[in-house]
Amino acid sequence: MSNIHLLEIHTPGQGLHEITGRVAQLVGQSSNAEGLCTLFIQHTSASLLIQENADPTARRDLELWLNRLVPEQGAHFSHSLEGPDDMPAHIKSALTTSNLSIPYTGHRLLLGRWQGIFLWEHRAKPHRRSVVVHLG
Amino acid sequence: MSNIHLLEIHTPGQGLHEITGRVAQLVGQSSNAEGLCTLFIQHTSASLLIQENADPTARRDLELWLNRLVPEQGAHFSHSLEGPDDMPAHIKSALTTSNLSIPYTGHRLLLGRWQGIFLWEHRAKPHRRSVVVHLG
Amino acid sequence: MSNIHLLEIHTPGQGLHEITGRVAQLVGQSSNAEGLCTLFIQHTSASLLIQENADPTARRDLELWLNRLVPEQGAHFSHSLEGPDDMPAHIKSALTTSNLSIPYTGHRLLLGRWQGIFLWEHRAKPHRRSVVVHLG
Repeated sequence: MSNIHLLEIHTPGQGLHEITGRVAQLVGQSSNAEGLCTLFIQHTSASLLIQENADPTARRDLELWLNRLVPEQGAHFSHSLEGPDDMPAHIKSALTTSNLSIPYTGHRLLLGRWQGIFLWEHRAKPHRRSVVVHLG
Repeated sequence: MSNIHLLEIHTPGQGLHEITGRVAQLVGQSSNAEGLCTLFIQHTSASLLIQENADPTARRDLELWLNRLVPEQGAHFSHSLEGPDDMPAHIKSALTTSNLSIPYTGHRLLLGRWQGIFLWEHRAKPHRRSVVVHLG
Repeated sequence: MSNIHLLEIHTPGQGLHEITGRVAQLVGQSSNAEGLCTLFIQHTSASLLIQENADPTARRDLELWLNRLVPEQGAHFSHSLEGPDDMPAHIKSALTTSNLSIPYTGHRLLLGRWQGIFLWEHRAKPHRRSVVVHLG
């Protein structure tokens, strides 16, 4: 069995979408019980994030704050062919991250008690996103 | 000997706390002389950072700048039960990173001449933080 | 053959400089066809980034936006001995990242269709930068 997997994730639109369960499932079925789980998102208008998965208000505040920091209007972007949400999506992606690495042992991710893994969709419309998972 | 270690770090409050020495010690004692050292912080209100470890004014300027970007007041956060510094801590954590990967050889981290590894405490009060270290 | 390589990159000044080709070449010559490629930049005034490599206007908009977020003037930095672009460079480096991890298979990086690997030079003048590449 290969150490590399591809997760396909359908996002309903802008926001944080938890993928902890899907990653944990791959780690649970891994041939090696201990190692490093690395996620890489194959897009530049969505990103990956470790955040609190307990209180949804924390995620909502985070989303609103980033939308205020990188507004669609008023920035006079040249790259606007794909719509007003495209260039802010690239910027938000650059400010967060394209890859995460989380150690695991006993077939379980060593996440903190309140941590979840999220795909952060920065485009307004639904998208199909690909995340490569490497278990090494 | 396992490739996974847990560092427990006591932070005196908000700010950058250097942990280079503690990580270097683990790499020095590793069973493999060459590999990749990955750090993962098990919290979402503190983060990890590679920064200059020579001039402390650079770190102070960095902290002040981020505090101005993400102020405690005026943002009307919904998630405020744990105090006014909690939601800014989550945002600062999202803007920096939860994990770092640094190659090593000859039992030494391949850091640049002026680079140090820092735990960035974003909460005001002292905390006990856990950082998982994977040597692969 | 070692799994660790050092890329030396000459940057002409501030901006995004694509290094996808040089990283792909190392992966192409790697002793293992499948694995994880990790890049680590040995500097704190330049950073690494995955971004769109198709339309140059997206990169230009990104650079201009970050320059507005972290301007050289008006922030009253204490750390200014190396010039007005030095402290903003440290901040920009902290907001982006020092390391990237990209899985590869069949000696090819699993980048998305429009993704490139960039070294983001944050200093105004030309620099010689070192990026450690670990193939594991």
